[in-house]
Amino acid sequence: MKKILFFFISLYAIAGWSQSKELNIMPWPQEIVLGNSNIEISPKFTVVVHQEITKRIDIATTKFIQRLSGRTGIFFENGFAFNANKIKNATLEIAYKRIGKLEINEDESYQLHVSPTKISIEATTDIGVIYALETLLQLVENNETAYFFPEVTIHDFPRFTWRGLMIDVARHFHPVDVLKRNLDVMASVKMNVFHWHLTDDQGFRIESKTHPKLHQLGSDGLYYTQEQIKEVVQYASDRGIRVVPEVDVPGHATAILTAYPEIGSKDTTYSIERFSGIFDPTLDPTNERTYEILGDLFGEMAALFPDQYFHIGGDENEGKHWDENLKIQEFKKKHAIDSNHNLQTFMNIRLEEILAKHGKLVMGWEEIMTDKMPTSALIHSWKGVNEGVEGGSSLFNAAKKGYKTVLSNGFYIDLMQPASDHYIVNPLPKNNNLTVEESARILGGEATMWSELTTSLTLDSRIWPRTAAIAERFWSSEEIIDVADMYKRLETVSFRLEELGITHIKNRDVILRNITNNQNIAALLDLTKICEPLKIYTRNSGGTEYKTFSPFTLFADACSADASEGIIFNKFVENYTATKNENSKKEIITYLKKWSNNYNQFLLLEKKSPILNEIAPLSKNVAEISTTLLSIINSKKIKAEDVNNGKELLLKLQKPVVDVELIILEDLNKLFIFIINEKGGKNSFKN
Amino acid sequence: MKKILFFFISLYAIAGWSQSKELNIMPWPQEIVLGNSNIEISPKFTVVVHQEITKRIDIATTKFIQRLSGRTGIFFENGFAFNANKIKNATLEIAYKRIGKLEINEDESYQLHVSPTKISIEATTDIGVIYALETLLQLVENNETAYFFPEVTIHDFPRFTWRGLMIDVARHFHPVDVLKRNLDVMASVKMNVFHWHLTDDQGFRIESKTHPKLHQLGSDGLYYTQEQIKEVVQYASDRGIRVVPEVDVPGHATAILTAYPEIGSKDTTYSIERFSGIFDPTLDPTNERTYEILGDLFGEMAALFPDQYFHIGGDENEGKHWDENLKIQEFKKKHAIDSNHNLQTFMNIRLEEILAKHGKLVMGWEEIMTDKMPTSALIHSWKGVNEGVEGGSSLFNAAKKGYKTVLSNGFYIDLMQPASDHYIVNPLPKNNNLTVEESARILGGEATMWSELTTSLTLDSRIWPRTAAIAERFWSSEEIIDVADMYKRLETVSFRLEELGITHIKNRDVILRNITNNQNIAALLDLTKICEPLKIYTRNSGGTEYKTFSPFTLFADACSADASEGIIFNKFVENYTATKNENSKKEIITYLKKWSNNYNQFLLLEKKSPILNEIAPLSKNVAEISTTLLSIINSKKIKAEDVNNGKELLLKLQKPVVDVELIILEDLNKLFIFIINEKGGKNSFKN
Repeated sequence: MKKILFFFISLYAIAGWSQSKELNIMPWPQEIVLGNSNIEISPKFTVVVHQEITKRIDIATTKFIQRLSGRTGIFFENGFAFNANKIKNATLEIAYKRIGKLEINEDESYQLHVSPTKISIEATTDIGVIYALETLLQLVENNETAYFFPEVTIHDFPRFTWRGLMIDVARHFHPVDVLKRNLDVMASVKMNVFHWHLTDDQGFRIESKTHPKLHQLGSDGLYYTQEQIKEVVQYASDRGIRVVPEVDVPGHATAILTAYPEIGSKDTTYSIERFSGIFDPTLDPTNERTYEILGDLFGEMAALFPDQYFHIGGDENEGKHWDENLKIQEFKKKHAIDSNHNLQTFMNIRLEEILAKHGKLVMGWEEIMTDKMPTSALIHSWKGVNEGVEGGSSLFNAAKKGYKTVLSNGFYIDLMQPASDHYIVNPLPKNNNLTVEESARILGGEATMWSELTTSLTLDSRIWPRTAAIAERFWSSEEIIDVADMYKRLETVSFRLEELGITHIKNRDVILRNITNNQNIAALLDLTKICEPLKIYTRNSGGTEYKTFSPFTLFADACSADASEGIIFNKFVENYTATKNENSKKEIITYLKKWSNNYNQFLLLEKKSPILNEIAPLSKNVAEISTTLLSIINSKKIKAEDVNNGKELLLKLQKPVVDVELIILEDLNKLFIFIINEKGGKNSFKN
Repeated sequence: MKKILFFFISLYAIAGWSQSKELNIMPWPQEIVLGNSNIEISPKFTVVVHQEITKRIDIATTKFIQRLSGRTGIFFENGFAFNANKIKNATLEIAYKRIGKLEINEDESYQLHVSPTKISIEATTDIGVIYALETLLQLVENNETAYFFPEVTIHDFPRFTWRGLMIDVARHFHPVDVLKRNLDVMASVKMNVFHWHLTDDQGFRIESKTHPKLHQLGSDGLYYTQEQIKEVVQYASDRGIRVVPEVDVPGHATAILTAYPEIGSKDTTYSIERFSGIFDPTLDPTNERTYEILGDLFGEMAALFPDQYFHIGGDENEGKHWDENLKIQEFKKKHAIDSNHNLQTFMNIRLEEILAKHGKLVMGWEEIMTDKMPTSALIHSWKGVNEGVEGGSSLFNAAKKGYKTVLSNGFYIDLMQPASDHYIVNPLPKNNNLTVEESARILGGEATMWSELTTSLTLDSRIWPRTAAIAERFWSSEEIIDVADMYKRLETVSFRLEELGITHIKNRDVILRNITNNQNIAALLDLTKICEPLKIYTRNSGGTEYKTFSPFTLFADACSADASEGIIFNKFVENYTATKNENSKKEIITYLKKWSNNYNQFLLLEKKSPILNEIAPLSKNVAEISTTLLSIINSKKIKAEDVNNGKELLLKLQKPVVDVELIILEDLNKLFIFIINEKGGKNSFKN
C-alpha cells in the first residue's frame, strides 16, 4: 500500500491503514495518517476563519457548506463562515498566512487535521485552504444514522507546480458556463492552470476591439466578449487557477485570415474551416501588418489575462504557402533564413518582443524550440508516437537546453484512451539523466481537450473523470501508481462530479433518449457500457467525416472511454482464463445472458428510425456472439456450427459500426478460444 | 376535434384530419390544414432567406439546422442559411417584411407552408420567422427509413400579446446560463416576455454602479454584472423576447435596506433575510434619500433594459414599520394621506415620475392600483383564493378602470399544481362583461416562478413542462381546451426540451444518485413517478422550515408536479371503477405488483444513510398498501386483516413524509372502497 507515506509508523497509524483503503481521495495526499475515531457532522457545524475572509475563502467555505448540506440533507444553522472574532468553538477552524499569488511555484500546501472534537486547516495561502476543503469533502463518510469525518492528519503539497487542462474552444465553441463548471472541478482535483485554446482554423473566439473583424468574421458569432473573458479569468482566480490564453499562429490561423486575408501568405480569400486537420493557410511573417494586428490583439489580451505566460501556439506549420510565395522566398534569402522553421522562429522572436513589452513570457508548442529561441520561452511538449517521434521527447530536450517545459504528450484526452494510459505517464521519472536544475524546469503537465468531435453536450464526458487521474499524476507522489486503486477511487470521484454540475453521466441518457425518440433506453444504455468511441484519430479519418456542424448526438457520443462493464468483464475473463475460477465463470455467464438479450430488447422499441436502425447491427451482433458463447459454454460437446458462427461473428465485430469499438471484443475472443481449447478436440484454433 | 380550425373544409383538409392527431405542436396554431403527402429531409436540405439575414434569423436558422441534424443524425451539407441571391432551389425559403420591434401588440404572425417539394415561411417580422421555425421543428416525423415534414399549411398568430414568464432570482440566484436556456425554451413555445424579479428580501441581484453597496452587501456575492444583464437582454431580444425588470418596493426590500438602512422606516440595522414570507422591513416613502437612491438605480437600469415597462413590485406591504414610525405618521397627517395604501400610492407616483423621465411606464403588482394611480400603469393581477379573494378579480377591475393589465393568478407554477390547473385558467373568457376597449386592455398573462424552494438544480423542473401548457393558453385560441390532448402533446414537448438543455428530466436522476450515494436508483425513481412535492404553501409552512441555504437536494426535489404514473394510474382506476374493464384491472394489478416490491428493492441498497432512511417509511407504506390491495383483489373472500391493514395504511399515507404527497393515494382509496364494496359483505365502508 504505497499510498500511505508514513514518516513515523506508529500503532496508531497502522490502525488507520486498513481503513484508509476505503478513502476515495484523489489526488492522493503526500502524507496521510488515519486515526480510528471520527467527528460527527451536526446542524451546528460552523466554520471560522482566523484571518480575513478573502473572496477565495468566502466562495470556498460557502460552497463547502452547501455541498456538505446537499450531500447529507443536513439543515445547517449557518450557511456561511464566520470571522474568528465573531464566534467561539467552531467545528472547523481555518488559518492561513497570505493571499496566494497566481504564478508558478506558489505555495499550495495545506495541513488538515481532523480530531474527534475539531477540524483544523492550516495553509500558507488561501489557495491551500481551497485544496484542504476539497480534500475534506472527499473524506465525508456515513453510517446508517450519521455523517462524519474520519480522524486524520494530512500534510499535502503538489509534486508539480503546473497542473493544467487545455480546452479547445475553436473547433467547437464552449460557452462560459461550461468553462466555469470545468474550472470548479479542476479546483476540486487541485488543478491550477486553465489553458484556453482560443483560436484555430475553425474559429477565432475573442472579441477584439482593435480589430473587430477578427471575431465578427472569424467566429460564426460564437466568441467571448471581453467582459466574459474577464469573468472567466476572475472565476478561475477565485479558485486558485491561472488562465493561459492561446492564439495559435502562424498556422492554424484560417479564422484570422478569414477576417484579414491581407496578412496571409497566399493572395486569396479565406473562409472559416469546417473540417479537421492541418491546413495550409498561414500568416505572413514577412508582412509588418501581421505584427501590427497581432500586436494590437496581444495588447488587448494582455490587459485581460494577468498571467505571466501567453501561448502563441506555433504547431503544425508546414509552410506550404510560404514556399509558394516569392516575396517570402526573397525575404528568407535577404535575411539569410535557411528554413521555414527558422522563418517561424524569426516570427516567434518578434512576437516574443511584443509580448515582453506587455510583461508576458512566451509559451508555445514544441515546434517553437529552435536554436535562436530565447530560453525565457516555455516549451509545450506534445508530440509522440502518433507524430512519429518518441513520446514527449522534447520535454527533456527543452529542460536540458534551459527552457522551462510542460508535458502534454500522453495526456491527449480527446483521443478517448483509458484513464490508465494517461495515468502511467510520468513527466519526470526518478531515474533520469537530468541535473537537479534541469529537472526543476519540468514544471508539470497539461491534459489537452481538443474539440473537433466534441460539443458542449459531450465535452464533460470527454474530460471527466479521466482528467482526475491525470490530476493525481500531476499532484501526487510518483509512488502512487496502482492502476486498480486509481480506478476504484475514480468511480466515486466521477459520481461526485455531478455535484459540481458536470454532465458526463446525465447527458449520456439525454443522447440516448434523443436517439430512441423518448423510448426505453435500456438496450442502448447496456451497449454504451461495453462500447467506446473510436480511439486516437480513427473516428474522423482524414478529418473529413465530420464537419463542425455535423451531428454529435450519435451513439458514439453517448459512449465514452473506460466503458464501465468493459472493465469489469475484463477482470472476470482474465481471472477465469487464468484460474478457471467458478465464480468468475458465473459472472461471465450473467453478462453473456444480459447481452444475448440485447437485440430482443432493441426490437421492442416501437418507434423505429434511421438513426436507430444504424445501431441495430451492433445490438444484433453483440446478442448473437453472446448467445453463441453461452451455447458453447453450456454444451458438453462443442457444436461445429457454434464455432463457425463464433468465428464469423468475432470477425464481423472487428469492423466498427456507428463509430464505436466493442470494448469487450478482445475478451470475447479470448474466452472463445479458451473455452474451445478447454473443451478440446479438433475445433481448437488460434485466432 | 376543435384544434383544427378550417376556413374551407375540403376533402383535402379532411384527409389530413386524422393524421393531425399525431401532431405534437404546442402551442396549437390558429389555423392548420394538413395534406396527405410529405417532404423528406435529406443531407441536401438548404435554407434561404429572401431578405437580410438579421441576427435573429441567423441564430434561429443555424440553431434550426443544428437541432434538425441532432435529432435525425443527418449530416447536412450546409450548416447555415444562405441569402437568396447565393443559391437557387432551397428546401426552405424564408421571407419577411421587417425587423420585429420588442413592444406590445407587435405583429408576431407567420405562415408556414410545407409542400411535397418545398417549404416556405412568410412573416411580417423576423420574430414571426422564429416562431415558424419552432413550429416546423415540432412537425418533424419519421418512419423506419426517413425523416420528413408533413404537407401542411399553417396560419398562426397569438391570442395575447403578453406571454410572460417571471423568474425570481432573489430567493435563490440563478446564473446567466440558466436564464439563457429558459429563454431558448420560452421562444420555442412562443413566449415573449421575461419578467426578471431581481430584488427581494433575500437578495438584491443587480450590480449598481451608483450605489454599489446594494449588490455588495445585499447579494452574498450573487448578482448580475451590468454586462451580464446586457447579455441576457440581448439574448432575449435575439429570440423575440422582451425583458421587464422588477425592483420590488417598498416592501420585499430587506436586501436594499441591508445596504442602505438609512432609507428604512425603522431605525435599525438589517440583514439579508434567510427565511420566506412577508417581512416588516419597508422603505421610507417620506425620505427624499429613498428617491435619490432609487432614482439613480432606476436610471442605471433604464439604460440596461430597453423595454417600455419597468416593474416596481409593490406587493404585500403591510406598513407595520410605517405605523411604528412617528415621522411617517406626521408626514401622512401633513399631506392628508389617510391610509398606508395611499402612502404607497404617493410613493408609486413619485417613482412613476422618475421612470417617466427615463421613458418608462410603471408596471406593478395589483396593490399599486389605487384611485390616484395614473392609468398609464400596468396592473399585474396576482391575488386569488390563497389570498382570500376571487381568483384574478383585479384583472377585470383594472381593465374597467382603464389600466392595461396582465394575469398571473392561476399561473403560480411554484405551487406545484398540475398543468391542467393552469391550463383551464382563461384570462378573457368569451362571455364577459367587458367592452371591446376594456377587453383589449387585458394584454395576456405571466407564469410566475418564485424561487424560495428552488435552486438552479431544480428550477427547470418547476417551470417545465407545465409552462408550455400555459404558453398555449396565452397563444392559442380559447377553443383549445382539451386537457387530455394537452397532456398527450405535453409529453413530447417535455422530452424535446432536453434538446435546449433543460434539465428537468436528467437532474431528477442526479438528485437520486446523490441520495443513494451512487447506488441503483430504481426504487426511488419509481417513487418519484407517484409522488409530488407538497403543493400550494404547505412544503415550507410559515416560511421557516427552509432557509435560503437549506438542502434542496432532497427526495421532494427529485419529484415534480404531474407525476407520470400518477396520471396513468388514475386513468385505469377511473376506468375500472366506472366500467369494471378487465384490461384496466390488469394494468392496475401490474402497477400494484411493481409498487408492492418497492420496499424490497429499497432494502437492497447496501449503503444506508440518514438521508436515505428518511424515505424508508414512504417506500414501506407504498409497498404494504399495494400488497394489501393485491391480496384483497386476489382473494375470493375478503380478509378482515387486509381491510384493517388497508384502512390503517391509507390513513398513515395521508400524513406526508419527506415533503411529498403520494399522488396515487386518492386512487388507492377509491380502489380499496370499490373492491371491498364490489366483493360485498360486512366489510364495506366509506372512507
